[in-house]
Amino acid sequence: MLIDGLREISRAIRSSIHLVEGFFCPQKADSGQLQQVLELWAATGTPLWQVSPAVMEKLAYGQRQEGLVAVAEIPSRRLEDLVLPDRPVVAVLEGVEKPGNIGAVLRSADAAGISAVLLADCPVDLWNPNTIRASLGCVFTMPIAIGTSQQVLGWLRRQEIRMYAARVEGTILYTEAELRPPSAIVLGSEAQGLSAVWTGPDIQAIRLPMCGQADSLNISVAAAVLFYESLRQRGLG
Amino acid sequence: MLIDGLREISRAIRSSIHLVEGFFCPQKADSGQLQQVLELWAATGTPLWQVSPAVMEKLAYGQRQEGLVAVAEIPSRRLEDLVLPDRPVVAVLEGVEKPGNIGAVLRSADAAGISAVLLADCPVDLWNPNTIRASLGCVFTMPIAIGTSQQVLGWLRRQEIRMYAARVEGTILYTEAELRPPSAIVLGSEAQGLSAVWTGPDIQAIRLPMCGQADSLNISVAAAVLFYESLRQRGLG
Repeated sequence: MLIDGLREISRAIRSSIHLVEGFFCPQKADSGQLQQVLELWAATGTPLWQVSPAVMEKLAYGQRQEGLVAVAEIPSRRLEDLVLPDRPVVAVLEGVEKPGNIGAVLRSADAAGISAVLLADCPVDLWNPNTIRASLGCVFTMPIAIGTSQQVLGWLRRQEIRMYAARVEGTILYTEAELRPPSAIVLGSEAQGLSAVWTGPDIQAIRLPMCGQADSLNISVAAAVLFYESLRQRGLG
Repeated sequence: MLIDGLREISRAIRSSIHLVEGFFCPQKADSGQLQQVLELWAATGTPLWQVSPAVMEKLAYGQRQEGLVAVAEIPSRRLEDLVLPDRPVVAVLEGVEKPGNIGAVLRSADAAGISAVLLADCPVDLWNPNTIRASLGCVFTMPIAIGTSQQVLGWLRRQEIRMYAARVEGTILYTEAELRPPSAIVLGSEAQGLSAVWTGPDIQAIRLPMCGQADSLNISVAAAVLFYESLRQRGLG
């Protein structure tokens, strides 16, 4: 995968993402921040090539050009490798199709102290440039695992983590749910909602109140409200 | 301004936005929803022109084409015309430069029952197609007023509305602030934060806890967490 953005690249390095090679362009760098990241980079021993502004314009994604682009190996993110803290609060995203939304949820999960994000039946490439960018690099720092919905559900049951499925027609108000650990906050896509996999006697359907004209919240917004409610209930927010 | 999207156009009509003319293309319409909106439209007596698919492709914004595009007058959104309910909770956005973020905040404000959104020193056109789209048309349905930061601050003081400024270095945790009405939740841009206008003995600086690697939240996410905390404190969430 390609990583651009100095913040994103330094988070990748600090998260032990395996870099393959890098390209930098002194003329495109505007600050001492590049120097700091290059020092981090040097410690990894990864090849680094100097390129012209014209080449950097081709390499960099979109309009942002911070003078450094990295090529990295896609890391494995298997459920069986996921290590959780003792009393976790995890987020599950099922079928979310917009990379920018996945990235935004990762950023909020990081901020709200969520232990891990599980991607269930994820139709997009997690390592899409839009995910990396919207997450500000939290796609590297957050514990993440990828699986089918059935795999994720089975894994949560084996871990004995209480499950709360966010649904428009949920019966329990989210503030009345016990979002303390160990719990999982399960969210579906805006268009499709959650699949029938997320029903059962051990899964509670929770809802956010909707007071206005619109009939739904953006998924990254709904996720953040639930994540911060969990933090509040844990006494940390 | 140009409005596309059937949901957005029907929200504009229901909010008494003055339509100038419209263009529809039967070949681009895929559902009975267009028919419903055309019925709403007919009741306004606004001219409507049938166009070919080729013309509709030129008119419609981006990739979404729902068979109807409206031209509407930009409505006035002056502070002095704003009418609030008795015990309001308002949001203030200062200097937010991304139309998509403004739209996302409007959508969340609508969902969380915020009384009005005040745009202070707003550097972008509120009626930008990206604002309309990201708001899902809530830019039409939400009470909104536009002014300089000084005007908005003066207006809030005259209304005797308690002010809470969201700042990274805020001293009060947002859950410990009295976000009950009458109050104002004041947010700045991600890049700049809030200006010095929003300091004073009658303005409390509140903060959201940040538990992770990232040092900030997306503004629409931060706004939604604060709006829903206010709703929770009001006993409605």
